[in-house]
Amino acid sequence: MTAMNLTPLMHRLESGLDLAFFPHTTIKKWSENFEEEFLHISYAARLNILSSIKAAGSGHIGTSFSSIEAILVARKLLAEWEQRESNLETVFFSSKGHDAPAVYAAMHVDGELQDKDLFKLRRLDGLPGHPEIDTPGIPTNTGSLGMGISKAKGFVYANRIKQRDSRVIVLLGDGELQEGQIWESLPGAARDNLRELTVIVDGNGIQSDTWLSNTSPLGDLKSRVEGCGWIYLECNGHDLDALKSVITRGQEKPTFVFAKTIKGAGINSMMSFGAKGKFYKFHSGSLDDTNYQNAVGELLARMRSASPPSEVFGEAQTLTVEDDEVPKSRPKSFVTEWSDLLRDAMAQIPNTVILDADLSYDTGTYFAREEFPNRYIQAGIAEQDMVSIAGTLALSGQIPIVHSFATFLSMRPTEQIFNNLSEKSRIIYCGFLAGLIPAAPGFSHQAVTDVGVFLSLPNIDVVEPSCATELQKALDYSISSKRSTYIRINSVGYPEIHECENFGPGVGAKRRIGNNIAVVTSGTTLLTQALEAADILSNDAIKISIYTYPFLGSKPTEEFLSLLARYSHVIVLENHLPTLGNFYIFKDSLQTSKVWRMGLENLPRNGRNDEVLAFHNLDAEGIAHFVRKISS
Amino acid sequence: MTAMNLTPLMHRLESGLDLAFFPHTTIKKWSENFEEEFLHISYAARLNILSSIKAAGSGHIGTSFSSIEAILVARKLLAEWEQRESNLETVFFSSKGHDAPAVYAAMHVDGELQDKDLFKLRRLDGLPGHPEIDTPGIPTNTGSLGMGISKAKGFVYANRIKQRDSRVIVLLGDGELQEGQIWESLPGAARDNLRELTVIVDGNGIQSDTWLSNTSPLGDLKSRVEGCGWIYLECNGHDLDALKSVITRGQEKPTFVFAKTIKGAGINSMMSFGAKGKFYKFHSGSLDDTNYQNAVGELLARMRSASPPSEVFGEAQTLTVEDDEVPKSRPKSFVTEWSDLLRDAMAQIPNTVILDADLSYDTGTYFAREEFPNRYIQAGIAEQDMVSIAGTLALSGQIPIVHSFATFLSMRPTEQIFNNLSEKSRIIYCGFLAGLIPAAPGFSHQAVTDVGVFLSLPNIDVVEPSCATELQKALDYSISSKRSTYIRINSVGYPEIHECENFGPGVGAKRRIGNNIAVVTSGTTLLTQALEAADILSNDAIKISIYTYPFLGSKPTEEFLSLLARYSHVIVLENHLPTLGNFYIFKDSLQTSKVWRMGLENLPRNGRNDEVLAFHNLDAEGIAHFVRKISS
Repeated sequence: MTAMNLTPLMHRLESGLDLAFFPHTTIKKWSENFEEEFLHISYAARLNILSSIKAAGSGHIGTSFSSIEAILVARKLLAEWEQRESNLETVFFSSKGHDAPAVYAAMHVDGELQDKDLFKLRRLDGLPGHPEIDTPGIPTNTGSLGMGISKAKGFVYANRIKQRDSRVIVLLGDGELQEGQIWESLPGAARDNLRELTVIVDGNGIQSDTWLSNTSPLGDLKSRVEGCGWIYLECNGHDLDALKSVITRGQEKPTFVFAKTIKGAGINSMMSFGAKGKFYKFHSGSLDDTNYQNAVGELLARMRSASPPSEVFGEAQTLTVEDDEVPKSRPKSFVTEWSDLLRDAMAQIPNTVILDADLSYDTGTYFAREEFPNRYIQAGIAEQDMVSIAGTLALSGQIPIVHSFATFLSMRPTEQIFNNLSEKSRIIYCGFLAGLIPAAPGFSHQAVTDVGVFLSLPNIDVVEPSCATELQKALDYSISSKRSTYIRINSVGYPEIHECENFGPGVGAKRRIGNNIAVVTSGTTLLTQALEAADILSNDAIKISIYTYPFLGSKPTEEFLSLLARYSHVIVLENHLPTLGNFYIFKDSLQTSKVWRMGLENLPRNGRNDEVLAFHNLDAEGIAHFVRKISS
Repeated sequence: MTAMNLTPLMHRLESGLDLAFFPHTTIKKWSENFEEEFLHISYAARLNILSSIKAAGSGHIGTSFSSIEAILVARKLLAEWEQRESNLETVFFSSKGHDAPAVYAAMHVDGELQDKDLFKLRRLDGLPGHPEIDTPGIPTNTGSLGMGISKAKGFVYANRIKQRDSRVIVLLGDGELQEGQIWESLPGAARDNLRELTVIVDGNGIQSDTWLSNTSPLGDLKSRVEGCGWIYLECNGHDLDALKSVITRGQEKPTFVFAKTIKGAGINSMMSFGAKGKFYKFHSGSLDDTNYQNAVGELLARMRSASPPSEVFGEAQTLTVEDDEVPKSRPKSFVTEWSDLLRDAMAQIPNTVILDADLSYDTGTYFAREEFPNRYIQAGIAEQDMVSIAGTLALSGQIPIVHSFATFLSMRPTEQIFNNLSEKSRIIYCGFLAGLIPAAPGFSHQAVTDVGVFLSLPNIDVVEPSCATELQKALDYSISSKRSTYIRINSVGYPEIHECENFGPGVGAKRRIGNNIAVVTSGTTLLTQALEAADILSNDAIKISIYTYPFLGSKPTEEFLSLLARYSHVIVLENHLPTLGNFYIFKDSLQTSKVWRMGLENLPRNGRNDEVLAFHNLDAEGIAHFVRKISS
């Protein structure tokens, strides 16, 4: 071990910024003496994670840093056992999946990924934001929380059927334990004594927004897990020996390890979240240039001091938290708009109740925890519970406003939503991150089936607002409606165009007036692209009209139909998979116009927003190209 | 208390059979001395349950008999407290919901339902098979398992918001505790100390198919519940005093009561299910005339012997079980056909694996438990766990065949199915009870959204076979397919028409050849009605053609399109809500024919199959009427 080894290489970004990283050739040597060099390996992996996320522009640092030791040790032990025993099949994967940068860094240690891959995180044809099987070495798609233990069981059962011994280790988040599926999966594993299985929980105590104990406490986890017939163990999740002692071979029962970790372990500022902290800032997102440079310096200094992570990290817990509030000035987006609208609604309408599933920052409901504590229900990562609570709140005369990401909200509690709809009550479901972008997290987070699923259910309007005015009108409509509404909220795109007089089922709003081609769309993402396409096309002297039609799949008014009928071509832009939505409605209703669909046909790709929109021909250039083609 | 009171009245069915019941006027007197007359009330309620189910022809006797005492006591205590405290709001409901006959019997005791209502169970405009809020006194729609505690929490939160005190009691099944949502719902109630809430579990130990301990054991329930921060209590669920002592006022925490009960308590033959029993026969269904008469006699004898149920019922446990196998000769249906096909597939294809969620009798997988124990995975009532297990089985080279009712399968594990589909693996999802009928259980069980939900997801074929041949071909197709298939199985209807040479996406099968009107349908239910409609119409000298088109929403072949194009009218029959299915496909593809849709437009009604089909104009007469209208 020489000092020279502790100097990282540099990778230059297009922006000119140099990112520090340790190449595989260096780490490989260390990993030959895994135990002795564990400290260097884990710090090198952290540096690679940090730079990988910096290159991507987004990613989950906090959880990648808390889980890296567990990932390294689990993979190492499995590799050793598999090498030793010819009939043994081993599997490691992360269920929470948002620690993908740490998984990739560990794969890079073992040469399963190359140096250049580190800088292709969250890029088209690069490394997905959450693990996907298209990356060799990734055993299953994860990132939709709660599925991990069931998936691990499937691997064990498959090997039993094949009469092979197996050893499966799955990593969970501690917040993830709030998902019901976790608790569905435990008893069957005990019944069949799936001793091949070890669960490791990255017990960093902080979930998306804040402390787990403030969100939805786990209670006496040992009792809960042992009550399901599993072995329950705890350990220091940053300590090599501690991890080795709990991840053993030949265990008598399925084993559940709660590894106590520190979120952001390795960087002082990321570990500085006091017990009363309100918002943990390093759950996701990359650091700015200055903080990145400081973090690199800190990691290298820790690495050179050669103190074991398990001892060093403890110190940070005592730091003072100066400000852990939500940043006062967030960039204007539909999330901040929604937040402002909701605040007004909550103030004016006493029977509104906000429900949230640990996404209060991302859905804009954070203010309610402070300002309307008795009308704010935090369900934790437990969407089914949240939706059924909303059901009886509505029956009791309240107006529940239910928040999550669109993909989780439409597919995790679907039967619960159906049950509520069968009661014909009024509930407002708000799904964020709707549509193709942000495309970086991958398809576990890209909601493109939500429109189809909601339109398959009875007694509900599906509304996708395209501007701040439509967002406000969508909220007003849903509050005064007699039935339930799904408000589909694009978290990306913010067109600076807000006049819209008409709003309601069947009604389109004029956004740009052109000649004989009309574009009908909904949502901020595609309206933004359509407006830009109109600008591009005006250079070619092609003028397109643009309309937004927020009530997806609603029967168009005669007025709007006759307006559209004047165009020779109507292009319907859909930010979702094919379903009985706007395209089919207009295709069926318009006799004289030629009606075209531009939209997603299959699973979306993941990557940077611009490149993914372009890949699916849904960026401004793609739309302009299509318009040129049909108008020529 | 006089002997005269113990003679029931009689209600004559159309069939001529007399059903014994105790009228409200009699029970009302007893209920004025609730504690003294508890034995009479509970036996009278049992008799009313028995006759109510006999009149309906179906219903869940076993669980209604095990839970009746808990329902009576909970409702009584709540009524007393509400009367005593002006600011108190009380709520009682059953989450499992299939004990609806017991809930109705208890409501009848209190005069909330009339005598005649008892005989309108599971009838159109009568009492729904599972509780629905359209029945005054029912607080929420239940019967989709696992939602109860969350719903109860919603009631408590609503009352807290209104600054009212509340007392909410929710009854669960013990099998229901396998659902993940139950375990999502507990921690939040502890965090907010929802001491207003009591959960009572009807702990009869037997779920749909067999013993809970053989299906998916609950483990150390006390540890699991207390670990979530709740009070855990146990009691004899048939004993008045025991129930009263655990259902108290002013409890310090949310309370979880495991009431030990006996399934079918009150009738010896229903209590005779030995420890090694394989199939409990009295989970659902009504008794035949002889057994009904015997049961009436037994109930009255027990009532007259005046021994407390809690003491009497114990004796039955020692009875010998002579035969608890699946009846060897079940009436031929798609379930038995499927069972035979599956057995062959399992025998011939070594990597097929059957998964089931406690519905092995209803989905026909029961043989596999005995014959292929290492390729049969019983998930219990835990659909999300089941589906994610299937996901990694498929990735490991197995062919998982996943079973549940269509409504549960499509909506409970939707995100898990999507996750599997994102891996582009081959999984066979089989949804039973698909479509409008059986209509008796109510819309929690009538799958009419499943087609829309599955068609909203990528990488999957949706196939609804209409005859035994198509069923076989659907299985063959799904096994040899490179991607996943959803096989939509109607549990009702069995057309005696099986020739079908062509099968595959886009292909229609000729079933009847007529003149200028074609009916295109799928599934046994509507094919049966369409064939009957053709017979009716032939009397009017109208000859219709009938085709089945099993690959819902698939792009039709040119051959089939040109065949259909010869008809002036094409009627598409859809046994589901509107979605991008067969109707829209043909409407879009056919230029010259007039294309009509007959199908469901909104939530289905519940009742007897014939009356509900007629209500929705989807019976033979309705179809014939429509054909006459368009052909005139």
